[in-house]
Amino acid sequence: MEMEGVDYLSDERKKAEFDVEAMKIAWAGSPEAFQLSDRMAKLVANDPAFEKFTRPMLTRKELLKNTLRKSAYAWKLIVDLRLSEEEAKWLRLYVDEPAYTDLHWGMFIPAIEGQGTDEQQKKWLPLAKKMQIIGCYAQTELGHGSNVQGLETTATFDPQTDEFVMHSPTLTSSKWWPGGLGKLSTHAVVYARLIVGGQFHGVHGFIVQLRSLEDHSPLPGITVGDIGLKFGNGAYNTMDNGVLRFEHVRIPRNQMLMRVSQVTKEGKIMQSDVPRQLIYGTMVYVRQTIVADASKALSRAVCIATRYSAVRRQFGSRNGGLETQVIDYKTQQSRLFPLLASAYAFRFAGEWLKWLYLDVKQRLAANDFSTLPEAHACTAGLKSLTTTATADGIEECRKLCGGHGYLVSSGLPELFAVYIPACTYEGDNVVLMLQVARFLVKTVSELGYKKPLGTTAYMGRVAALMEKNCTVQTAEEWLNPGAIIEAFEARAARMAVRCGKQLAKFDNPEEGFAELSADLVEAAVAHCQLIVVSKFVEKLQQDIPGKGVKQSLEVLCYVYALFLLHKYQGDFLATGYVTPKQASLANDQLRTLYSKVRPNAIALVDSFSYTDHYLGSILGRYDGNVYPKLYEAAWKDPLNDTHVIDGFQQYIQPILKQKLHSAKL
Amino acid sequence: MEMEGVDYLSDERKKAEFDVEAMKIAWAGSPEAFQLSDRMAKLVANDPAFEKFTRPMLTRKELLKNTLRKSAYAWKLIVDLRLSEEEAKWLRLYVDEPAYTDLHWGMFIPAIEGQGTDEQQKKWLPLAKKMQIIGCYAQTELGHGSNVQGLETTATFDPQTDEFVMHSPTLTSSKWWPGGLGKLSTHAVVYARLIVGGQFHGVHGFIVQLRSLEDHSPLPGITVGDIGLKFGNGAYNTMDNGVLRFEHVRIPRNQMLMRVSQVTKEGKIMQSDVPRQLIYGTMVYVRQTIVADASKALSRAVCIATRYSAVRRQFGSRNGGLETQVIDYKTQQSRLFPLLASAYAFRFAGEWLKWLYLDVKQRLAANDFSTLPEAHACTAGLKSLTTTATADGIEECRKLCGGHGYLVSSGLPELFAVYIPACTYEGDNVVLMLQVARFLVKTVSELGYKKPLGTTAYMGRVAALMEKNCTVQTAEEWLNPGAIIEAFEARAARMAVRCGKQLAKFDNPEEGFAELSADLVEAAVAHCQLIVVSKFVEKLQQDIPGKGVKQSLEVLCYVYALFLLHKYQGDFLATGYVTPKQASLANDQLRTLYSKVRPNAIALVDSFSYTDHYLGSILGRYDGNVYPKLYEAAWKDPLNDTHVIDGFQQYIQPILKQKLHSAKL
Repeated sequence: MEMEGVDYLSDERKKAEFDVEAMKIAWAGSPEAFQLSDRMAKLVANDPAFEKFTRPMLTRKELLKNTLRKSAYAWKLIVDLRLSEEEAKWLRLYVDEPAYTDLHWGMFIPAIEGQGTDEQQKKWLPLAKKMQIIGCYAQTELGHGSNVQGLETTATFDPQTDEFVMHSPTLTSSKWWPGGLGKLSTHAVVYARLIVGGQFHGVHGFIVQLRSLEDHSPLPGITVGDIGLKFGNGAYNTMDNGVLRFEHVRIPRNQMLMRVSQVTKEGKIMQSDVPRQLIYGTMVYVRQTIVADASKALSRAVCIATRYSAVRRQFGSRNGGLETQVIDYKTQQSRLFPLLASAYAFRFAGEWLKWLYLDVKQRLAANDFSTLPEAHACTAGLKSLTTTATADGIEECRKLCGGHGYLVSSGLPELFAVYIPACTYEGDNVVLMLQVARFLVKTVSELGYKKPLGTTAYMGRVAALMEKNCTVQTAEEWLNPGAIIEAFEARAARMAVRCGKQLAKFDNPEEGFAELSADLVEAAVAHCQLIVVSKFVEKLQQDIPGKGVKQSLEVLCYVYALFLLHKYQGDFLATGYVTPKQASLANDQLRTLYSKVRPNAIALVDSFSYTDHYLGSILGRYDGNVYPKLYEAAWKDPLNDTHVIDGFQQYIQPILKQKLHSAKL
Repeated sequence: MEMEGVDYLSDERKKAEFDVEAMKIAWAGSPEAFQLSDRMAKLVANDPAFEKFTRPMLTRKELLKNTLRKSAYAWKLIVDLRLSEEEAKWLRLYVDEPAYTDLHWGMFIPAIEGQGTDEQQKKWLPLAKKMQIIGCYAQTELGHGSNVQGLETTATFDPQTDEFVMHSPTLTSSKWWPGGLGKLSTHAVVYARLIVGGQFHGVHGFIVQLRSLEDHSPLPGITVGDIGLKFGNGAYNTMDNGVLRFEHVRIPRNQMLMRVSQVTKEGKIMQSDVPRQLIYGTMVYVRQTIVADASKALSRAVCIATRYSAVRRQFGSRNGGLETQVIDYKTQQSRLFPLLASAYAFRFAGEWLKWLYLDVKQRLAANDFSTLPEAHACTAGLKSLTTTATADGIEECRKLCGGHGYLVSSGLPELFAVYIPACTYEGDNVVLMLQVARFLVKTVSELGYKKPLGTTAYMGRVAALMEKNCTVQTAEEWLNPGAIIEAFEARAARMAVRCGKQLAKFDNPEEGFAELSADLVEAAVAHCQLIVVSKFVEKLQQDIPGKGVKQSLEVLCYVYALFLLHKYQGDFLATGYVTPKQASLANDQLRTLYSKVRPNAIALVDSFSYTDHYLGSILGRYDGNVYPKLYEAAWKDPLNDTHVIDGFQQYIQPILKQKLHSAKL
């Protein structure tokens, strides 16, 4: 499909020094993963039912109705084609429209799987998996997000009737934000304060029916609605994020999710032998998918900006010839190529996190909780690091497209608006970094008697890392994974140790932690950047088939690391491991690396294998045919339906004719 | 109006250590300026005709029609109340909705004033000022933005008829982006390549009528329309940014703007004795207004985030008491207070630029061009610096509001979307910084025989600045304007000199400039930050009346400077003026300063004196009554018109009832 017509980027594609088809497989993870993804991408792209160009022009009601149509159509496809859950997930991803089904499959079902008893799973999962009920995940409230223990909704056990009474005692206890809640879910897993015998027993999940399965009207005692417009055109407005209030709503006792804690008929609280740590396993799972999504979103933005930077020409024409492609400017390269490298870096970090999750899962099954704190800190940190970088990176890509990036038809405004919630949901990014910092400080303080594990193993060599300094003497010497890793390790270790020392000056450690929190976040970021760099380097120690593939990835790995080294040179210099001269050599090397990326840039974004449908961007078209298509698209704006604008006679003519005094305004 | 009802922030207001009314005057610039602004703000806020809450929910057609109504209404007010041009400008600002009139008053009229002959001004200005014609400024094309000399539209002189023939020879020559062009302007100043006798004579402006003054239909040979949706809900979509093509459209010879160059009846090109440098005077003017707008936009975002940070509480409850206000967290302060300080810093930089413009104007009138290059570089740099920081700052403020900042009712999404074009229009921010860098490098290379002026005067002391190092030994010693200014001067001077040395290694200076452009931009940023810090310090050397006003501003000045010192500590350390120990002391001092800002935070944003109408944010309400109003607003979403969503029967019921196979999708 992409091969028809003229290819304005064919010269760029010929420059590639590696095998693009092999790189596609390296990006996807395996030939099988590539084929699955590719099949689903094409299924969506070739079906006009999934058209999305007009989306940003629809009113809220039209928009949601359109999403309902697409979701039903997609579900029909999934059933008719007997797609696996994995295939269905990819299909929904390529439909590229937030919908109530995301929460049904991604949060409601996993919550029951993770927190429901076998009996509960047997009852609810078949209903949910056939979509005979539609569920969402109702945790966040108007007054509480990050502080889950502060939730105010109550679930009070009534032993007389063997029921829980769900209630919203204050305005701020209103559930607020859950996707799929506002207009569509029939059921929700509701998190509430368990009250038994007048005593508070922690926050738990409860399955609550919200709407009639017959006519969809809200059940008695339930107030439910949409919370209103969110950022952007289209974007997340296809989702019915909702508000929910309970007025003493009763549910059977067996609708509390009781895998870990039970309430008996008699009102006794029992703990099962299922480890509570299971919850952290789920968090590790959810956050690793967020890292995978970050590389997806960033790579889309980078693909658009890279292709357009090769199409766009400005200045530098000599003798009336063509002007310079903007991708040839070093200012453009120094902003774009680090983002390209970051997309790859996050991809491999995500791949590794997937492995980590499986490892944690296996250990949990064997009652081995030893790696859990480290795995938890590491996923929290990478979630924070990659989503922040991706949100900023998408906006940077938009700016790299100049004025035209501001048009919705560039695809970038919608990509930004739909992506940024990732910085807030599943843990606010700053709060998460503070968790990482807390773990780091603890690790440092325990070094005397506890061997640090996994991603903190380098802390075990802290004495050496505090003493040794960088030995690089030429720009070329920076092209050495050992030199790079050691620089990142020394910086991270020294920042963590320094924080530990400063904290020790406070009598009250919590006061110290609060006072120094901004610095602690910086130390945590340094640690997380080290993880991403390390995992990229480790990936390159594996066998990666295909002509030139590994070499091209090596260049990107160096770009990623040296870009960070330059951007955060304050850290590297302040901790003293690197001298100003060495930092300057790293920066020189970075410029050289940009020249190595340049001929491969288009092929590197082609390797993401995104269809034009998925990209949804005129600037990022595979064929580079940007200007005619921008021009064509403009005329589709409803304002262009008529030559003379609606409102001319009322509001313009009276001005021009100086008859405003008698106009009705 | 703001004083009615409960004030949830009254405790915060009582903490203020300075006279808020006096600070309002310091912010506005003078008592007169405050009164004017205040009068216009209230005029708009109290008039229901200017309601803007529903704006993001309108379709594009409704949206534009609504803007036409408001613009006509505002113009009627201006005429009826006999408002001055200055008052009208403030009124339009507080209406807070981009409209075709912005370009008419801000670009079309100034272009004729600046580039038209006396005769042309006499003919066109009365028509324009009475709005008997509506004009726009048609420069940018589909294929050319930054490179004005690359514009492709042609204006070919035909001596036979004494006319110019306006033509769009290629697709990329289509005018693209001009505001007010798409659906509303009757006239445009069109920039085109002047062709006389087959020869190209540079790019010039031409007044071209586009639409009938009777029925508003496009004139023959003219294709004109809107370019389509832009970023965000409402936001800039109230503007009809347009596309325009000419098919050999003829205009009289006297519609070329001929103040500088003339084409005679015989086809001779004549230069008047009016200096060409006048153009730069206009650029200085336009860019100083952009800096003023930056402080306006950033202060709005900061006002919203600061008030909400005092309302929002999360974690830290002891014994069931209130949780901690998020404004009390150091992580929040370290992100929010530097932006608060930046808003003030940009305000005073803008005030100074206004003075600079008047100075340049006087000098130009006296044929003194000596300060022009420096003034031009300085305004270009400050435009770039302040708009970039403001765009990033608005998004940071949105993140500081957590999840609720993502709601359109927070006001922040629209503020971001409507603001970000400022990074691109009137000079792409990176291109502008390269211009500054070019000027700096030139200044350095000429130091031997030319005394640097104005904002580059410090370069005259470059030898000393290369040698001396920072003498600060305690955190307190950083509270010294001299120490701070010298640090910023030394950093900027050393970076510029370093760039000069590196450039000298290249045989071809242009090649060197291209290769090192990313580093040159960094040097230019350092120079521009020095300017903003210096102007803030200079402001504080003046008399500023009011209890505690000057002291509070001093704290903000230190916050701004030391925040930059910390954020860019890589520069300060790499250039060797500051040691790691000294940088660390600056960071310690910064934390102390945040504690000094804290009690004054709400009063410092109250001092902007923004009405709730202008802020347009539930989170930023003056009275802090956030949650009830958020809840109330949610129900106004059209999705909540019915309990059961439109589309249920078609797209949801068949799923729930397992009857998808027979559904029509």
